[in-house]
Amino acid sequence: MKAEIVCIGTELLLGHVVDTNASFVARELAELGIDLFHKATVGDNLQRIQALLEQVWQQADLIILSGGLGPTQDDLTREAVALLLREELEFNEDAWQQIAGYFQKTNRTPVASNRRQAMFPRSGEVIPNPFGTAPGLLVNKAGRILIALPGVPYELKGLWGTFVKPYLLQQLEQQQKMVITSRMVKMAGIGESAMEEKVIDLINNQSNPTIAPYAGQNEVYLRITAKSESKAKNDELIAQTMQAIESRLAEYIFGYDTDNLETVIGRILKQRGWRLAVAESCTGGLLAHRITNIPGCSEYYVGGINSYSNELKIGLLGVPEATIDTYGAVSEETAKAMAEGIKQVTKAHVGVAITGIAGPDGGTPNKPVGLVFIAVSLPDYTRVEKRTFPFDRLGNKEAAAKTALTLLWQELCKV
Amino acid sequence: MKAEIVCIGTELLLGHVVDTNASFVARELAELGIDLFHKATVGDNLQRIQALLEQVWQQADLIILSGGLGPTQDDLTREAVALLLREELEFNEDAWQQIAGYFQKTNRTPVASNRRQAMFPRSGEVIPNPFGTAPGLLVNKAGRILIALPGVPYELKGLWGTFVKPYLLQQLEQQQKMVITSRMVKMAGIGESAMEEKVIDLINNQSNPTIAPYAGQNEVYLRITAKSESKAKNDELIAQTMQAIESRLAEYIFGYDTDNLETVIGRILKQRGWRLAVAESCTGGLLAHRITNIPGCSEYYVGGINSYSNELKIGLLGVPEATIDTYGAVSEETAKAMAEGIKQVTKAHVGVAITGIAGPDGGTPNKPVGLVFIAVSLPDYTRVEKRTFPFDRLGNKEAAAKTALTLLWQELCKV
Repeated sequence: MKAEIVCIGTELLLGHVVDTNASFVARELAELGIDLFHKATVGDNLQRIQALLEQVWQQADLIILSGGLGPTQDDLTREAVALLLREELEFNEDAWQQIAGYFQKTNRTPVASNRRQAMFPRSGEVIPNPFGTAPGLLVNKAGRILIALPGVPYELKGLWGTFVKPYLLQQLEQQQKMVITSRMVKMAGIGESAMEEKVIDLINNQSNPTIAPYAGQNEVYLRITAKSESKAKNDELIAQTMQAIESRLAEYIFGYDTDNLETVIGRILKQRGWRLAVAESCTGGLLAHRITNIPGCSEYYVGGINSYSNELKIGLLGVPEATIDTYGAVSEETAKAMAEGIKQVTKAHVGVAITGIAGPDGGTPNKPVGLVFIAVSLPDYTRVEKRTFPFDRLGNKEAAAKTALTLLWQELCKV
Repeated sequence: MKAEIVCIGTELLLGHVVDTNASFVARELAELGIDLFHKATVGDNLQRIQALLEQVWQQADLIILSGGLGPTQDDLTREAVALLLREELEFNEDAWQQIAGYFQKTNRTPVASNRRQAMFPRSGEVIPNPFGTAPGLLVNKAGRILIALPGVPYELKGLWGTFVKPYLLQQLEQQQKMVITSRMVKMAGIGESAMEEKVIDLINNQSNPTIAPYAGQNEVYLRITAKSESKAKNDELIAQTMQAIESRLAEYIFGYDTDNLETVIGRILKQRGWRLAVAESCTGGLLAHRITNIPGCSEYYVGGINSYSNELKIGLLGVPEATIDTYGAVSEETAKAMAEGIKQVTKAHVGVAITGIAGPDGGTPNKPVGLVFIAVSLPDYTRVEKRTFPFDRLGNKEAAAKTALTLLWQELCKV
C-alpha cells in the first residue's frame, strides 16, 4: 500500500504552525508498514487543493488528509474531495447526528455554519469524532482509500486511535500483501558517525532487513526493517540482525521503539525504589518538564528547584556562597553543590543539576555562551561533566537537558 | 514571486523528526511577501526527488530545498539538481575550500566522503556555510531561483540569515513587483469564534487589507495582509484596519507579530521593576521553561519550585499540611497557598502556581483528569482560577502553562 499525506491550511504555508500532524501520521504509517512516498501541504484554495488531490489520487492507494473540515468558508476539504470524486455535496444525516450529539454533550447549540460540516460527497462515510465538532470523512472507491481528518492535533490523534488505525489494519489483512516490520534501536552517548562506523558492514551488505542510521538530538538510532510474507518471519530476520547490532553497540543502547531516555530512566528508578530530584539553572525547568511528561512519574520523581538566581542557589539548595564567589555560578563546583543540595533538601536518592549560559548574552571569553556543567549525584558519589554547545538559546537548553538525561542513564546503569 | 518548499529526507517520511525547517522557511517567505503555494516532502530516493523537482520547476519561480547535502550515499540533493538541470556534477573548488576551511576551523580533517559535498552542477554557486560542513547550493537559471540548504535546523536558519534572506530581498527589489505586508494581532482570553464574531463584518467586506483569523493554543490571532506597489502604502492600509480591530478587541490584545505572552509579561515586569517566581505541580517545569526561553529573563525571573510531591509543597513552599489534608493537593486553597508561598520564599513581587491532574491516571469523579487550579499572586491579592482541560497529558500541561501566562498577563495589565 502506497500512501500520501496532504495537509490543508494556509496557516501551515505561513509558518505560524509547526505541522506535527504530518509527522504523527508518517510515524503511524511506518509502524503499519505502509510506504509513504511524499507529504504535501497546500493552502485553503479550492483549485489548488483539488489539483493536488487529483495528482495524489493517481499515485497512491491511501490518501490521508489533515485539516479543512471546520465550519467556516475557509474549510474546503469536503468541496475538494467532492470535485475529485465528480460528486455533489449532500446533507449527510449521520454526520449531522454526530455534530448535534457533540454539541449536546458539551452543552452548546450548533450554529448555522455547523451544517456545512454535515455536507458530504455521496460516497463519503462518516468517521465519528468524539473529540470535536468535525466528523472525519472516509472514501473507499476505485481501489483507493481517502481519509480526511480534522487538523486539530488532539482530534486527529484521537480519531487515528479510535478509527483509522483499526480500519487500516483490517484493510492490510484483507490485501494479504507483503508485511513490513520495523524496529528502532535507540542509543545515547555516541555520535552518528562513530555509531555508523561500528555497523557499516551490516548497513552496506544487508538488504533484508535493511539497517538505516538516524541522528536525533543527542541520541542516535538504527532502524531495522524486514519485509516478507509474515510478521513471524520478519521478527526472526530482525532478531538475527538485532543480535549483531547489540554485540557491537551494547553500552550505548538505552532502549527500543517508543522508549526514550525519560521512560527508561523512570523504569530503572522504579525497579530500584529510588527517588529523583533536579536543580536547574539555565535549562529553567525543561529537564523537569521532560521527566514529568512520563505518566506515573510521581512514583519516583519528587520535584525540583529552578534556581535561576544565585539567592535561590544559596537559600534553597544550600550552595555555599563562597563556592559561587570563588568559582562562579557556572562552574563544576557549583553544579556539584547544586546536585548534592537538591538531593539533600528533597531527601531523594539521586540529584541532577544543570548550570550554564544559554545565551545569547552573558558569555565571556572564559565562559562562553553554550558552556554548561551537568552534575549527577548518586547515593555515594557525584559525577560532573562540562559541555560547550554551539546552538541558540532554546537549542542549548534542549542539548543540556538531553545530555543530563544521558549522563543520568549512564550512571544508573553503572550502580 | 511564487515559491515552493521541498524537504528531502526519509526520516521526515518516517515521522521521526518534526519538520521545523519547512515552517521556518514558510514564515520567512511570508515576511518577505513571497507567496508559497505548496510544501512537499520526499524521501532519499533519487528518482522521486528528481520527479518532484521537475514538477516544482514548472510551477514556481523560487524553490527552496532542505536536506540531502551531507557526505553519505543517502544525500542525493546535488545529484537530483544536476539531473533537473541536465548538467553533470563537477568538482567545485569554491565548495571544497569552504569544506576544508570548516574542518580546519574545528580542528578536524575531512574524510573522503566529504569530497562528495564539493560536487556541484556547473551552474550551481556555493553558499558558504560557517555553521557546518555542507555548503549550500544556489542556482539562478531560466528565470528561476533554486536554493538548496542543509537540513540541520541550526545550519539552515543560520544560512537563511547570512545569505538567503539578503539575496532574496535583492532579487525582489530588482523585480519591483507588488509588495505584500503582513501584521499579526495576538490575543488571549477569548475564543476564536467569539473573536471572529466581533470583526466578521471587516473579514467579509474587506479585500485590501485582508483579515484572517487563526487559532493557536489558548491564543487567537488576526493576520492583516495588504498588497500594493509600496510598503509605505501597505503600512497606511494596515494602520486603518488595525485601528478598527483594536477598538473592538483591545482588552484581549497582548501583542503583535513576534510577541508572545512570555515576552510581553517580561516587558511589563521589567518596566515595573517586579520580580516573578513560579510554583509548579502538574506542569512540572513547563511554565518555568517557557518563561526562561526569553533572553534576559534573569532581570525579572527569580526561579521556581517544582513541588511535585506534597512534601515539597509543605517543606519548601510552606503550604499548610492542614490545607492539603482538608482540600487536597489539587484545590483552590492549595494553589493559593503555593502562589503565596513561592512569592514569600523567593521574595518576589509576583508568584504563580499551578496544581492539577495531567493524566492519564489519577482522576476521580470529583477531580477528573484535566482539572487544574491556577493562582496568580500579586503584591496585594491572589486570583485563583479553575479549569478542566480535555487533552492528553502533554496537552493538559501545555494548556495549563498557557492559561497561567494568560492570567498573569491579565493581572499585570490591571494593576
